[in-house]
Amino acid sequence: MKAFMDQDFLLSTETAQRLYHEVAEKCPIIDYHCHLNPKEIWEDRRYENITQVWLGGDHYKWRLMRCAGVDEKYITGDASDYEKFCKWAEVLGKGIGNPLYHWSHLELQRFFGWYGVLSAKTADEVWKVTSEKLAQPSFSARGLITQSHVDVICTTDDPVDSLEYHEKLAADRSFATQVLPAWRPDKAMNIEKATWKAYIEALAKVSGINVTSFAALKEALSNRMDFFAAHGCCVSDHGINYVAYAPASESTVEAVFQKGLRGEAISSQEEAEFKCACLFFLSGEYAKRNWAMQLHYGCRRDNNLTMFEKLGPDTGYDTIDNYAPAGQTAAFLGALEKAGSLPRTILYSLNPNDNQAIDTLCGCFQNSEAVCKVQHGSAWWFNDHFQGMTDQLISFANLGYLAGFVGMLTDSRSFLSYPRHEYFRRILCRLLGEWVEDGRFPADFDILSDIVKGVSVENARKYFGLKNKEV
Amino acid sequence: MKAFMDQDFLLSTETAQRLYHEVAEKCPIIDYHCHLNPKEIWEDRRYENITQVWLGGDHYKWRLMRCAGVDEKYITGDASDYEKFCKWAEVLGKGIGNPLYHWSHLELQRFFGWYGVLSAKTADEVWKVTSEKLAQPSFSARGLITQSHVDVICTTDDPVDSLEYHEKLAADRSFATQVLPAWRPDKAMNIEKATWKAYIEALAKVSGINVTSFAALKEALSNRMDFFAAHGCCVSDHGINYVAYAPASESTVEAVFQKGLRGEAISSQEEAEFKCACLFFLSGEYAKRNWAMQLHYGCRRDNNLTMFEKLGPDTGYDTIDNYAPAGQTAAFLGALEKAGSLPRTILYSLNPNDNQAIDTLCGCFQNSEAVCKVQHGSAWWFNDHFQGMTDQLISFANLGYLAGFVGMLTDSRSFLSYPRHEYFRRILCRLLGEWVEDGRFPADFDILSDIVKGVSVENARKYFGLKNKEV
Amino acid sequence: MKAFMDQDFLLSTETAQRLYHEVAEKCPIIDYHCHLNPKEIWEDRRYENITQVWLGGDHYKWRLMRCAGVDEKYITGDASDYEKFCKWAEVLGKGIGNPLYHWSHLELQRFFGWYGVLSAKTADEVWKVTSEKLAQPSFSARGLITQSHVDVICTTDDPVDSLEYHEKLAADRSFATQVLPAWRPDKAMNIEKATWKAYIEALAKVSGINVTSFAALKEALSNRMDFFAAHGCCVSDHGINYVAYAPASESTVEAVFQKGLRGEAISSQEEAEFKCACLFFLSGEYAKRNWAMQLHYGCRRDNNLTMFEKLGPDTGYDTIDNYAPAGQTAAFLGALEKAGSLPRTILYSLNPNDNQAIDTLCGCFQNSEAVCKVQHGSAWWFNDHFQGMTDQLISFANLGYLAGFVGMLTDSRSFLSYPRHEYFRRILCRLLGEWVEDGRFPADFDILSDIVKGVSVENARKYFGLKNKEV
Repeated sequence: MKAFMDQDFLLSTETAQRLYHEVAEKCPIIDYHCHLNPKEIWEDRRYENITQVWLGGDHYKWRLMRCAGVDEKYITGDASDYEKFCKWAEVLGKGIGNPLYHWSHLELQRFFGWYGVLSAKTADEVWKVTSEKLAQPSFSARGLITQSHVDVICTTDDPVDSLEYHEKLAADRSFATQVLPAWRPDKAMNIEKATWKAYIEALAKVSGINVTSFAALKEALSNRMDFFAAHGCCVSDHGINYVAYAPASESTVEAVFQKGLRGEAISSQEEAEFKCACLFFLSGEYAKRNWAMQLHYGCRRDNNLTMFEKLGPDTGYDTIDNYAPAGQTAAFLGALEKAGSLPRTILYSLNPNDNQAIDTLCGCFQNSEAVCKVQHGSAWWFNDHFQGMTDQLISFANLGYLAGFVGMLTDSRSFLSYPRHEYFRRILCRLLGEWVEDGRFPADFDILSDIVKGVSVENARKYFGLKNKEV
Repeated sequence: MKAFMDQDFLLSTETAQRLYHEVAEKCPIIDYHCHLNPKEIWEDRRYENITQVWLGGDHYKWRLMRCAGVDEKYITGDASDYEKFCKWAEVLGKGIGNPLYHWSHLELQRFFGWYGVLSAKTADEVWKVTSEKLAQPSFSARGLITQSHVDVICTTDDPVDSLEYHEKLAADRSFATQVLPAWRPDKAMNIEKATWKAYIEALAKVSGINVTSFAALKEALSNRMDFFAAHGCCVSDHGINYVAYAPASESTVEAVFQKGLRGEAISSQEEAEFKCACLFFLSGEYAKRNWAMQLHYGCRRDNNLTMFEKLGPDTGYDTIDNYAPAGQTAAFLGALEKAGSLPRTILYSLNPNDNQAIDTLCGCFQNSEAVCKVQHGSAWWFNDHFQGMTDQLISFANLGYLAGFVGMLTDSRSFLSYPRHEYFRRILCRLLGEWVEDGRFPADFDILSDIVKGVSVENARKYFGLKNKEV
Repeated sequence: MKAFMDQDFLLSTETAQRLYHEVAEKCPIIDYHCHLNPKEIWEDRRYENITQVWLGGDHYKWRLMRCAGVDEKYITGDASDYEKFCKWAEVLGKGIGNPLYHWSHLELQRFFGWYGVLSAKTADEVWKVTSEKLAQPSFSARGLITQSHVDVICTTDDPVDSLEYHEKLAADRSFATQVLPAWRPDKAMNIEKATWKAYIEALAKVSGINVTSFAALKEALSNRMDFFAAHGCCVSDHGINYVAYAPASESTVEAVFQKGLRGEAISSQEEAEFKCACLFFLSGEYAKRNWAMQLHYGCRRDNNLTMFEKLGPDTGYDTIDNYAPAGQTAAFLGALEKAGSLPRTILYSLNPNDNQAIDTLCGCFQNSEAVCKVQHGSAWWFNDHFQGMTDQLISFANLGYLAGFVGMLTDSRSFLSYPRHEYFRRILCRLLGEWVEDGRFPADFDILSDIVKGVSVENARKYFGLKNKEV
């Protein structure tokens, strides 16, 4: 029996152990997609206790507590931080098979040096240990990032954002991690939402362009892309229901745009046409600017309206959708390619059933502009566990060129989430180790370590064109 | 090499062996969903030979024989019972990888104490051994149930059923197993079927309510639910194509209802609207009565019309469908939640591709009313094998709280099917054992046995509010 | 650690090793579906170097090179054969987890007796070794086939084909492998394509039937089927988007046919109706002639228009689609069954998510005409790797009767692809061995070897009614 989560956690073969400890473990982190708040990095935010860090805004944990039948009082309600943590510890103690079990223990081990087992019994001990540590200087936002050996962070930013904190962070030579903005223009595209019109006005204001036509919208977005580029942005990100291919004439799109401005209802066909036109335009702009494009789809959000009204979005009420026609994704990418405006693109579906279709689709648009120019993103969100990551890696390898994979990202709002890179790397090394020790790939350490180093960090560095900060 | 199906069958680690033999094996069975005939329990049905038990109505076995190219004569035709059994033994002897191989051998071991290997060679021996045993008193319907250590059985009953045999069984102190009715109102909802109108008339008769409007239908169903509740019913069950969300006004639904009464053709949109309205109403009633709701979907039935005309439904001609829009399921549950009328709900899809979408959807509707209030049902029907159960457990654990799972049911028409609970528990213990011995969860026997006991029996007891019979 | 790809490659248990070496390895090959060119077999084509064999037309390899960022110059461009091979070796050297890694090394081992590891370092050595071997007489097309112990080959042929080379091969007693035509009438069905009308004219010419109506089309196809049958054809094959069930009256289909002849645009509904009518007719003809029908679906082709214009079809730009309604497949097969005209049928979907739905659907149409009369085809194209084949076998076994599976085919254009049968057999033996050594099936070598022999070759021989050539 292997010991519980020791130094060889998940490393089931000697090959895996060697690859992890001699290669993967030593690689710095490039976190090319996350939801960290640059203001909190700039202000070097601190936490009083583990509840603030872990349960302050982490909807993964909230969901598990609700599954376990915990009263909302102990989740987002008015129970004390200590009470909330004790409830969490109780729930997690029986959370077998859930990735939060591993993530939480990795965080306790790596940041707090605590190697026990969290449960109702040890909750108080962990509360004390973590409270003490959190009071130390190295446990500020920047301290946690620095401890985690992070070379580059790409945050997720709205086109109207001032990037004020990115500017400040860039100018601050005392902090060695590169913090770059990433472009996420969802709000400009979501014409079906009641908030869209106000957003367009905000965009007009910040860009200085009077956004009264679709052409003007494109101009305003270009203007903001230039601004983002000037702040080092090199990657975009979209959260969409599915990749719609609904080509329409300029005049049709303009008419939909005008309906949106007038606050009229938009049909689902009109919505698809507008979004397709937006994404087509933006893709071309990314290609021109040499930005990579990330497309996240397959999610159905805010399914519990009662709780949405109480807590708002991103509070644990989203689900995997199963509507993502591969034919439309293919047609959309095909049209971009035909127009010579397909940027480096990463496809993430929340539905793991899409793995194989994504991997084969990527294979249709490769060329010498980049290794794995179009690629399948790391197991996302609900798939970010042993099984999901393993399945994504196997599919990528079976149907593509795993050695070119840009690898892991945290996708997180927490400064403590970097051990997810460790988790991913252990799973990667385990898989490669199993293949090697099963005689399916030669035990050539040079080639294997080259692959592991690439997937751990170097492929991302190259693919996104990222450079370390000069300090 | 492990011995063939010995006491440690499927228990690949010492942890698994201990969990199974010290915990799971000792737990009684709560079979909260099956298709046993309460009349047969009451009358304490007996069987002359193994063909009657095994091949009398088991469409799983019929399918396998047909796959193997056996003539229908030996399946549902006029061959002798002995000939049929010999054909079955011959087919099963080469049935590697099919769950029937394990189910059949577990039944031979547990009920008949026969530990050999069934094949053409041993058919005659098994025929003799089983014939002899079946003549013993303990091999009646009740004897088999009692041997199997079954605390509670929930049968599957139609709203028009008199529940006569449930009443008799409840009054009979000599039989210790609680046998409760479960509510399955499919026939009332299937307005597209030619038999619907006659069914509505039967419902009117038994309820004493003149069902001439949709409102009256609801009243009649409520009346019958009260009747079922008085007989201890606490769980409902629906067999539907998919969870349709097609909200419509009362007048629209009423118009569809009237079309149905007049025997006019119903469009698929009308069908969806009517079914959605029915299910919405019923869900609210379940919530009020504190009943759990089971939704079984993803099946396409009676695909072979020629054989349907000969043999009728449930004879081995059903298949997995791939049309079950997650968005509609989500919208339906969301509307119930918003209306405050979402009961405890268990979702079963026949398509294993739906596992992850179901598990994340469940996570959107949890609260402190119950542990895993909305949950993913046990691997159903065609998925009821090693791979299917393992996949369902992994998905449940990855995306939810496995410790709260209500676990296994037989879904069976056979009094010999209880070893499927054993099969499930062995698979559960194997999975947990592998995780523990791989260092992914601590070897804490208290916590593990708590989880195993919960999933084996105690969670179901609590979730459905079931009590043992007082005898 | 197991040695890299030695004689026990993939054979993880002693049972697997015994089953492979004592049974599977000794079985001849029946390659019932491939894309070999009969002219090349007749002319006994030879190759100057490994690039011609491996990279001349193999879009699997092209895709992997493009994924790895290789310039098209080294793929289909004007680089020298030697340069191309070196690029390929470099890419493959890091191709961990891709089936090409195994296929390529199996080919180097079996045909060239080279047991090293191909990479940038060894490229030159391999170039020399293979060039030398390719100059030997046994390395002609026929030599490679004979070396591979191939009893029967079914090529893929168009109804208008003269079958000239099949005739010549049949008459040539010096070549022991039976080479039969297989019927692939896609071009007659693809009425939506611009090339359809010209095809219909070619069909008219070769059949001597003036194809001016749908009835005449059917007559012309029947005429050609008779011609194919006279040349030993016993299997058909269709490449379709999905199995459409769109029943329409003869007059409706006739109207669509006439639109096609006039070169008018065909709606997608009309296309579905026409194709459904064609396939329904053809299925009945197959049933009459005792031919088996293969349906390949779930592919979206030619997604990269730019490259399609440069290189044409089958050049590495196809992808897995996710639109294949199980309900329509079921309804189509059900209608055939009802009409008494369902032939032996093999279903292949490119989307592995369809595995379970296919296996259960097959179970609805079995009878004593054949073992596994309707069955799930071997893991196809993008699924033709360790994971895909294992998944297909498990699904087949769980939901059907694995002992009746017709097993592997190469589906290949290359005379070097026979080791894919070896790959499949190793994976089959591994799976069975794991089940046996895990105590899930008895270690009964007679039964196991019977199953292995059946799936390796004998089931296909029987299912397709194939006989060895008399020489």
